[in-house]
Amino acid sequence: MSFDDQPHRRFNPLNGQWVLVSPHRAKRPWQGQQDEPDNSVRAAYDAGCYLCPGNERVGGVANPDYADVFVFDNDFAALIPGDDASVDGGSSLFQAAPANGTCRVICFSPDHGKSLPELPVAAIRRVVDVWAAQEEELAKTHAYVQIFENKGAMMGCSSPHPHGQVWATSYVPAEPFQENITQKQWFNEHGASMLLAYAEAEHADGSRTVAANTHWLAVVPFWASWPFEVLLLPLFAAASFSRINNEQRDALADILKAITTAYDNLFRTSFPYSMGWHGAPSAERDAAHWQLHAHFYPPLLRSASVRKFMVGYEMLAEAQRDLTPETAAARLRAQSPVHFRSMT
Amino acid sequence: MSFDDQPHRRFNPLNGQWVLVSPHRAKRPWQGQQDEPDNSVRAAYDAGCYLCPGNERVGGVANPDYADVFVFDNDFAALIPGDDASVDGGSSLFQAAPANGTCRVICFSPDHGKSLPELPVAAIRRVVDVWAAQEEELAKTHAYVQIFENKGAMMGCSSPHPHGQVWATSYVPAEPFQENITQKQWFNEHGASMLLAYAEAEHADGSRTVAANTHWLAVVPFWASWPFEVLLLPLFAAASFSRINNEQRDALADILKAITTAYDNLFRTSFPYSMGWHGAPSAERDAAHWQLHAHFYPPLLRSASVRKFMVGYEMLAEAQRDLTPETAAARLRAQSPVHFRSMT
Ligand SMILES: O=P(O)(O)O[C@H]1O[C@H](CO)[C@@H](O)[C@H](O)[C@H]1O
Ligand SMILES: O=P(O)(O)O[C@H]1O[C@H](CO)[C@@H](O)[C@H](O)[C@H]1O
Repeated sequence: MSFDDQPHRRFNPLNGQWVLVSPHRAKRPWQGQQDEPDNSVRAAYDAGCYLCPGNERVGGVANPDYADVFVFDNDFAALIPGDDASVDGGSSLFQAAPANGTCRVICFSPDHGKSLPELPVAAIRRVVDVWAAQEEELAKTHAYVQIFENKGAMMGCSSPHPHGQVWATSYVPAEPFQENITQKQWFNEHGASMLLAYAEAEHADGSRTVAANTHWLAVVPFWASWPFEVLLLPLFAAASFSRINNEQRDALADILKAITTAYDNLFRTSFPYSMGWHGAPSAERDAAHWQLHAHFYPPLLRSASVRKFMVGYEMLAEAQRDLTPETAAARLRAQSPVHFRSMT
Repeated sequence: MSFDDQPHRRFNPLNGQWVLVSPHRAKRPWQGQQDEPDNSVRAAYDAGCYLCPGNERVGGVANPDYADVFVFDNDFAALIPGDDASVDGGSSLFQAAPANGTCRVICFSPDHGKSLPELPVAAIRRVVDVWAAQEEELAKTHAYVQIFENKGAMMGCSSPHPHGQVWATSYVPAEPFQENITQKQWFNEHGASMLLAYAEAEHADGSRTVAANTHWLAVVPFWASWPFEVLLLPLFAAASFSRINNEQRDALADILKAITTAYDNLFRTSFPYSMGWHGAPSAERDAAHWQLHAHFYPPLLRSASVRKFMVGYEMLAEAQRDLTPETAAARLRAQSPVHFRSMT
């Protein structure tokens, strides 16, 4: 079977689902929607931005004059703190359960105009420290801590100011719940961590590598469903942020800059994506089966304005991709490590 | 627990996943992307459309001068016929398998300007007959037949000409594969069809009903993740289209018109969605556990131009919705049964 020109399926051992790969399909002409690429160069301060230092937010509170990373409680949180544990709905077809949690916004930098790849490594390192501190604090009182970033209007992000979020919940949500099952099962069968074994195999192979350093590896996973999806993995055992030492955090800041720079350079645009960290559920923060990792899910396919639509067949039947993960990785790897905006 | 103002989770017994419901969140202001609503009134014939009768397609073939429904093989198929069954990739972390199939396009009508709700019931009935015939034919040589429609540029649809697709595959794709497991398990435990029991319970309750007739029920399911998601269910046992008699087909055409008319009237726009049919896998076309049904997944949330983004938390953790299924159903139910365009 030739991966390069023959439709085939690949298996994602992390979520237990297959993905359809149709490499020849990249050749079809695109007559559908063109999105507006985000190529605006923004000033360092925007008086109308509710995330900039000193400005008033929608809720009426003013931001402090912060100097690096700034965290606050989301003014329109999807979850609210509480301890309701009553379970509603009698019959098994109408099951409901209470959901409580804490939602926070993490401003990566006071500079309105700079996204992650445009920040100095030292500034990204401070974001890593805040992620670790948030996880540490919120894991004490929540079953799961989900750290993520929506970037770009195409990804439903309503503010261009560089920021991410953390939603910590009284329950373990669907995706990490599933990853806990698959990683535990693999560990029980092989006596080793699935994602550490996977990182070592990918590191040795190299064909899907996007970036690597002594401690971290970024690959387009063998089972990627988004065109330029990236899986960021430690090359050492670590179930959560609390297990990452200073040197490993430095290296993490480095590789985050490398991945996001390759993204921006690929289509010379501020590359939209959703990214997020999957650490172990709070009750299993030292579990040997769980390996901390980040997923990057970016929608662009052909250019800064032509995206992959995960619709129709993908929603009803199965994820489908139009170029192989190997091709996607090679294209990202070929990008300059210098951000296109800093070259002009 | 109050469903109306308290965040909670609901369980989807069909795919085995929870959904987070945050009803109070509908109140937050929206400062993000506004999409272009599709409000163009189109002529019955467009010389530049590759689906209109008589026109030449991208591949160079000319369409016949068809009079009602027209089916042809997709010129840029994601799957190609074949019988490769070799399995690649040795270790369990790098599993690949061949995928073969047939991809067809189904033009609903020669009239370029009319989408499903604007067609007469008799024309929709002809679409139903073609769906049934395609399923019948393709199930003979494929493990699964996926019939679907992507509607609207927002859903990655590249032609406004009313059409759907069918992808028939040598394998059972992820979603129906999962639905087969959950329906089988429920049947084994309860000795009855899960979705027939569900349809009866919803029919009796009424609070999530969007439309109903003697044979069919359309509800915003208790576990809906998209804002105005609809599940279309038969009120009789039927594992696939082949089990639906003429009277039931007439009633199906009727309710399809009712659902899509309510959709268009809600925001007075051509309502975008992906919809598709889940019939039983070909090997189990008479299975008592499987109930034929259609899912409608529409993205709009607040207006013709403000959609729900399933990003960030939703991609990384768990689906999340901002209004209750009961509220969504009540709003759809309140719409006139007459299409807004035919009222002017
Ligand atoms: O086949 P089309 O309409 O050209 O393409 C559309 O539907 C396909 C099947 O759902 C998707 O894979 C594509 O991403 C989408 O753009
Ligand atoms: O919280 P935001 O940025 O306002 O909103 C965005 O991210 C949320 C979390 O992923 C999503 O639920 C919303 O649909 C999206 O628009």
